[in-house]
Amino acid sequence: MAEQEGITVKKSENFSEWYTQVVQKAELGDIRYGVKGFLVHLPWAVKIMKRMYKFIEKELEKHGHEPFLFPSVIPEVFLKKEKEHAEFIADVFWVTEGGAEYKKLEERLALRPTSETIIYPMFSLWIRSWRDLPLKTYQSCQVWRYESVTRPFIRGREFYWIEAHNAFATKDGAKKQVEEDVKITEETLYKKFCIPFLFFKRPEHDKFKGAVATFAADALMPDGRVIQLPSTHFLGQNFSKAFNVGFVDKDKKKKYVWSTCYGPAIWRILGAIIAIHGDDKGAILPPAISPLHVIIVPIYYSTAQFIRIMRKAKAILENLEKNKIRVKIDDRKEYTPGWKFNYWELKGVPLRIEIGPKDIQLEQVVLVRRDTGRKIVVKERGLPKMIKRKLRSIQQSLIERAEKFLKEHTFEVFDFEQLKEILERRGGIVKTEWCGKIECAQAIKEKTNGGAIRGTLFGVEEKPKRKCVYCGKVAKQVVQVAKQY
Amino acid sequence: MAEQEGITVKKSENFSEWYTQVVQKAELGDIRYGVKGFLVHLPWAVKIMKRMYKFIEKELEKHGHEPFLFPSVIPEVFLKKEKEHAEFIADVFWVTEGGAEYKKLEERLALRPTSETIIYPMFSLWIRSWRDLPLKTYQSCQVWRYESVTRPFIRGREFYWIEAHNAFATKDGAKKQVEEDVKITEETLYKKFCIPFLFFKRPEHDKFKGAVATFAADALMPDGRVIQLPSTHFLGQNFSKAFNVGFVDKDKKKKYVWSTCYGPAIWRILGAIIAIHGDDKGAILPPAISPLHVIIVPIYYSTAQFIRIMRKAKAILENLEKNKIRVKIDDRKEYTPGWKFNYWELKGVPLRIEIGPKDIQLEQVVLVRRDTGRKIVVKERGLPKMIKRKLRSIQQSLIERAEKFLKEHTFEVFDFEQLKEILERRGGIVKTEWCGKIECAQAIKEKTNGGAIRGTLFGVEEKPKRKCVYCGKVAKQVVQVAKQY
Repeated sequence: MAEQEGITVKKSENFSEWYTQVVQKAELGDIRYGVKGFLVHLPWAVKIMKRMYKFIEKELEKHGHEPFLFPSVIPEVFLKKEKEHAEFIADVFWVTEGGAEYKKLEERLALRPTSETIIYPMFSLWIRSWRDLPLKTYQSCQVWRYESVTRPFIRGREFYWIEAHNAFATKDGAKKQVEEDVKITEETLYKKFCIPFLFFKRPEHDKFKGAVATFAADALMPDGRVIQLPSTHFLGQNFSKAFNVGFVDKDKKKKYVWSTCYGPAIWRILGAIIAIHGDDKGAILPPAISPLHVIIVPIYYSTAQFIRIMRKAKAILENLEKNKIRVKIDDRKEYTPGWKFNYWELKGVPLRIEIGPKDIQLEQVVLVRRDTGRKIVVKERGLPKMIKRKLRSIQQSLIERAEKFLKEHTFEVFDFEQLKEILERRGGIVKTEWCGKIECAQAIKEKTNGGAIRGTLFGVEEKPKRKCVYCGKVAKQVVQVAKQY
Repeated sequence: MAEQEGITVKKSENFSEWYTQVVQKAELGDIRYGVKGFLVHLPWAVKIMKRMYKFIEKELEKHGHEPFLFPSVIPEVFLKKEKEHAEFIADVFWVTEGGAEYKKLEERLALRPTSETIIYPMFSLWIRSWRDLPLKTYQSCQVWRYESVTRPFIRGREFYWIEAHNAFATKDGAKKQVEEDVKITEETLYKKFCIPFLFFKRPEHDKFKGAVATFAADALMPDGRVIQLPSTHFLGQNFSKAFNVGFVDKDKKKKYVWSTCYGPAIWRILGAIIAIHGDDKGAILPPAISPLHVIIVPIYYSTAQFIRIMRKAKAILENLEKNKIRVKIDDRKEYTPGWKFNYWELKGVPLRIEIGPKDIQLEQVVLVRRDTGRKIVVKERGLPKMIKRKLRSIQQSLIERAEKFLKEHTFEVFDFEQLKEILERRGGIVKTEWCGKIECAQAIKEKTNGGAIRGTLFGVEEKPKRKCVYCGKVAKQVVQVAKQY
């Protein structure tokens, strides 16, 4: 639809502009719909998102979560019931009128910014006994936030995610869910989407509104800032008390449930996938989620050749499809092979097959990797096997590349000037020690122009041995600091 | 979650109450969330809907539609741009404020009641040349309507559907799309969801707001009223002119596109599936969309038996899964086999396998059909094949049953008193002749207590030979009349 043209800036020189161009030129999203922060999602993005949803949903269901679809509106009173969660009202769009005469609704309804206050009223109806627990739910949906600064697939006024909400009979059951969520994040974010991450327990001052404790995966973006991807929250009994979600336990006593929630934000993860894996030619998609594994480009100089090559291309397509490889032939006559190479490279398709007149005679094709640009000649006979091998290899390479970048931008310093210098000059994640006081956290943020304490590594016991990097008093935690999205 | 209990009314005696109970007791939807007309969709319904979406999306993509996700809000000015479509403002919820201080938004935003006015502004950006056409899009999403009377899966303030929006270079191209939509309806509604339908061209006074012509599938509900399922609209150039969607044609001339839209309402179709196929025991699901094909219920009288039977049940489950049969064992110890039979019958699972102690010795199981209740003994060896055969048979039987009911409630009368009597006493669809005047249509509706002219059969040439059933003047059309949802 849009006229195609390559990316005009280098990723390493102007990441922000590079990202904007990839979103637009790889035909992922269109920001020109007249309402700020509301994105039009183009087919290429929708198809990727569908695969992402499928992987995470499958993993959630494997672990006992059941799919629901909850209403998208929340009466104001519900949203305000849990004291800290109530602060979400700052972030909501309000539905207030109906019909041609703009009739005032009986109550102000929030478009859900997250669904705790929709789900807990239902939990209070559904849960009666310990037999009803654990109750593990999820929904795949969009949410809305009244954001001031927006960016496609990173921060939006409407965005797509999954939210899992769970109730348990015991505190321990709820705490184990957090561990399971880390595992689910590992299985999807890392293994399928090729994004390495650090899982943190967030400091007190950076918790989800209403949570007892917040845990979250941080991935490192190419500009050296971290982005929060799935986060998971131990909610204790905050919501069960606010919404009266009780149950009769085995000992016949009435108790409140313990609860958690987990929010893999498909949208943001897609943003990170584009940002982290892409190069100066455009997006590079992990094979697991690419709508196409292979694009076939016929190369011909006459109609007779075109007919012969198309016959061959179709035979190859059928053979690959039989082998569950997602493949398409770009047979558009109005574009040159070179134009098509650029087009599919922009979109990030992992492999390209070129078939020219000579290849037919030799019963071979040229196979080109998107990630390395490397070309090899492959005999037709072994093609499906070779493609599967290459897809696995690309999936693995993307992980390794991203891990290498993360490693190169991970530091350990105990001197504030060094911390500052790293955050300002190079970016990345810096391990250091902290006294635990919010004043120091704020001062660090101010003086490093945005360096935030991301928290302590989850599941790792790290004892502080030195002083707080800022105030020099006794350190209470080994923490990591980074600028954030 | 809910305590289980059978349906307490007969479908034939109190259809409305029967429907409400099935929705609730088969755990499809929960209406107790505090906002009128907003349904909580329970896992059983979500899983069915996912399969329904998949079938329709696949069919749409096969015919060249690409998936999009458009914003959920519409600036009031967009919604009002097409003169007739503007009437939709009577049906919308308005988003007017943001944040904790309820700050007035710069413009009033409608929650989409349908997405023409979101999509045409984008079409006007995307379409430049005849090469960009046809442009065939769809999105799977929810929409919102400010309805006064609501009913789960039939009429809601929030409901789920697919909407396809398409632009063509020629009028003929657009008209052909309507025919394709009939085919897609046939492939899904009829073949997968087992719902026979009549496809009508609606009369002028019953068109979609903004359409040149409206076509729609009517299915017959058990109470003798019809329900409109997918509808498809020929929009002519109404929207392309209102939103300036032009293109340069092959002849270098600038022209407006011709457009259509098609709206298979997953939600309503699910309502019709439940209503049409169910019986006094609950829902009966077409195998194609049932989350489970088979439920296995072990029957045992001791722990030793339980262990042996479960071992057998698991072996059978694995064997069936290998054969792509969706199957589950209900091994809950707190319930009796009888309770489980009722539970899964309520939910509508097509087949049940019972395994008792004697069956193990004889290497057999008892197989029970949900639709007929018929039990047969099947040897383990031939089980997957037999189950596949039975599933095909159930799918076919559901279609035949529904067709029989439709046929029995299809009439042809030319006398107004007879028409009235049929509509009031028996319900159904009555073929008759009409002069084409809206006054007669209105009078018929009033005097028959709701009988509406559904239109002329699509794709069938029927010449009127008599007089208008109401006024007795020359008939212009052979039409069908029915009460409607």
